[in-house]
Amino acid sequence: MKATGPIPAGFESGERGLLEIGERDVDTLVTQAGGTPLFVYNSQRIADQVRRFRAAFPAKVGLHYAVKANPYAPLLEYVANLVDGFDVASAGELGRVAHLGLPISFAGPGKRNQELETAIRAGVTINLESEGEAERALLICQRDGLTAKFAVRVNPPFGLKGSGQKMGGLASQFGVDHDRAPALVRRIVDAGVEWAGLHIFAGSQALHADALIDLQRETVALAASIAEEAGQAPPHVNLGGGFGIPYFAKDDPLDLQAVGTALADRLARLPKILADTQFSIELGRWLVGEAGVYLTRIVDRKESRGKTFLVTDGGLQHQLAASGNFGQLLRRNYPVAIANRFNAAAEEEVTITGCLCTPLDLLADEVMLPRADVGDLVSIFCAGAYGLTASPVGFLSQPMARELLV
Amino acid sequence: MKATGPIPAGFESGERGLLEIGERDVDTLVTQAGGTPLFVYNSQRIADQVRRFRAAFPAKVGLHYAVKANPYAPLLEYVANLVDGFDVASAGELGRVAHLGLPISFAGPGKRNQELETAIRAGVTINLESEGEAERALLICQRDGLTAKFAVRVNPPFGLKGSGQKMGGLASQFGVDHDRAPALVRRIVDAGVEWAGLHIFAGSQALHADALIDLQRETVALAASIAEEAGQAPPHVNLGGGFGIPYFAKDDPLDLQAVGTALADRLARLPKILADTQFSIELGRWLVGEAGVYLTRIVDRKESRGKTFLVTDGGLQHQLAASGNFGQLLRRNYPVAIANRFNAAAEEEVTITGCLCTPLDLLADEVMLPRADVGDLVSIFCAGAYGLTASPVGFLSQPMARELLV
Repeated sequence: MKATGPIPAGFESGERGLLEIGERDVDTLVTQAGGTPLFVYNSQRIADQVRRFRAAFPAKVGLHYAVKANPYAPLLEYVANLVDGFDVASAGELGRVAHLGLPISFAGPGKRNQELETAIRAGVTINLESEGEAERALLICQRDGLTAKFAVRVNPPFGLKGSGQKMGGLASQFGVDHDRAPALVRRIVDAGVEWAGLHIFAGSQALHADALIDLQRETVALAASIAEEAGQAPPHVNLGGGFGIPYFAKDDPLDLQAVGTALADRLARLPKILADTQFSIELGRWLVGEAGVYLTRIVDRKESRGKTFLVTDGGLQHQLAASGNFGQLLRRNYPVAIANRFNAAAEEEVTITGCLCTPLDLLADEVMLPRADVGDLVSIFCAGAYGLTASPVGFLSQPMARELLV
Repeated sequence: MKATGPIPAGFESGERGLLEIGERDVDTLVTQAGGTPLFVYNSQRIADQVRRFRAAFPAKVGLHYAVKANPYAPLLEYVANLVDGFDVASAGELGRVAHLGLPISFAGPGKRNQELETAIRAGVTINLESEGEAERALLICQRDGLTAKFAVRVNPPFGLKGSGQKMGGLASQFGVDHDRAPALVRRIVDAGVEWAGLHIFAGSQALHADALIDLQRETVALAASIAEEAGQAPPHVNLGGGFGIPYFAKDDPLDLQAVGTALADRLARLPKILADTQFSIELGRWLVGEAGVYLTRIVDRKESRGKTFLVTDGGLQHQLAASGNFGQLLRRNYPVAIANRFNAAAEEEVTITGCLCTPLDLLADEVMLPRADVGDLVSIFCAGAYGLTASPVGFLSQPMARELLV
């Protein structure tokens, strides 16, 4: 038997033992969506996370949604009523949120000239990733007589300890090295372009409050030092994100209050050059990850050499990360359940696979679950972020998963 | 500096040092396709592989194309003129080749009832993966008065040694355990359905001829033993595939002739029960993998902490496997070149990334290449199989890659 990750709190079984998501049972949800495989996103859980964030952090810290985590259109519309801005990573993402009326910033190391022009014309803040990108963006402004807002993305000399994906303290394709940032700020100001501030993002999927507290302290200090050296007070500093959610056994949830309290202390005694600076935190996974459930129906139950396999109509084509093939060094089991026997006791060890003709397509390996058979529903939790759009949806020409916001 | 995989033989530079694919230079190809990122598949290389296969293997061994490797429509049409059948892994793949007039077989552990019915009505051979699937398929035949062709997929007691993906010798979602296969054969025959034979697939991406020779010998012996126990001569035995291509430094190409000669010897002295059996080998990656090149344009060139980064307009959203996130335990570099300076000497160490805002998006790490700058073209080789459709094309809402068969 292998461990599974913790099912996020708040998922309950209703009548007939059916898992409920947003007060609707999974049978009803699947019927409403037209079938499986299906991603269900619970809007209430997203709103709850935003409330928790607002309660823990000082009011002067804005909350941005990182569109890359989940760009499902109804979800973006819903989130637009809760957050203070969108962070996008392509012109495609910009197109998904441009009509929603919030401030937008655009980071990403490979912005094409056409993307820069589109974003500048849309009034979006460009988080410049290099001196070369800055010059290309300035040329576009000069050529077409455009005004623009440029922030500088900084590659910090420190990283996020214990981060799932370390993005700072190393050579990187993201941002300019911190010691070159002041010169780039001055270049922007000297060119007569509005300087929007700094963007400093050093990692993601951290579960340890201490690591985030250290990171945010270092980030504020670095912003002040860059501003001093540039001789310019930054209107805005994006402190990055990096808040993780528990996916696996022994993962503990982040102590949000501790991070918020520490940041409030830090912002209460800011260096003078940051006195009028607005701050924001950009979150994707932490806001929507636990709100999502992937539902897939069992197509076959079979025995092989003493193991029981449940084969489903879903798979890694929709949930690549759950198969262990998206950045993980070791494959571990996501939280999983039999969704139509959600209140039943575990009684057998099974391995759950997708329907693809590849041994990579493993959704849950040797897990204890209630008895399940053909026609039953499997639920994979923590599927709200980096799910469908981070998966090879065209693989083996399988049908696209459905999505539903409830 | 880190090593890169070997560029497949036969790629040459033409005028102005431009890489040529199918006698057209990359500038022309990109213009023809309308831009980058672009997959180019060279039909001549596919035909050459088929010719090599035919020369090495006895005429009585049929060659099937595994559609999952690359389902690009023009490529399927081209391949249809070269091979003896298609192996599909979903009703979606069936739909892509049903009009091409070749025999089709359908394997895959999670066939839905609707898929079974579609395939039976289309006259496709169903490779049954379990007793449960057999009963569901038989019910469909009875209910609708359909005739069908059923083969039995066998989970063999041996695996493919040195295989990139071992699929035999273990508990598996694929096929029925070999000791239960005779009973399933009898069940099919007793139900009055046409028994098409056996499908025994034990692994993929093998580069060692000895491993494949052993595997094919064991496979033929297992087919004979199952047939004897079932008391039925199999009309057809699919010996699987598993032929690999060199992706990484120190990978040596498969000695095809050795495998073919050994199989010819084996088939020349068959057990009596296999005397009239037709054999086939099913290949995907080996047929089309080296024929494909992924072309992506450099959008930024930047320095960070002593390293040079080339940031491209492509990335793991099209070439997940090259980023090391598709089944690999360790990330290694695919073969890579600067496609518009293909004949130039390597002179600097660079790291090539995609345009995604994630550190996973690494296409080539610390490789020696000719000097390259914004606007130059990067070519990633061995991109013809498990490329675009095995990648998260919707990630970060980036544009879809183009494809071209030349």
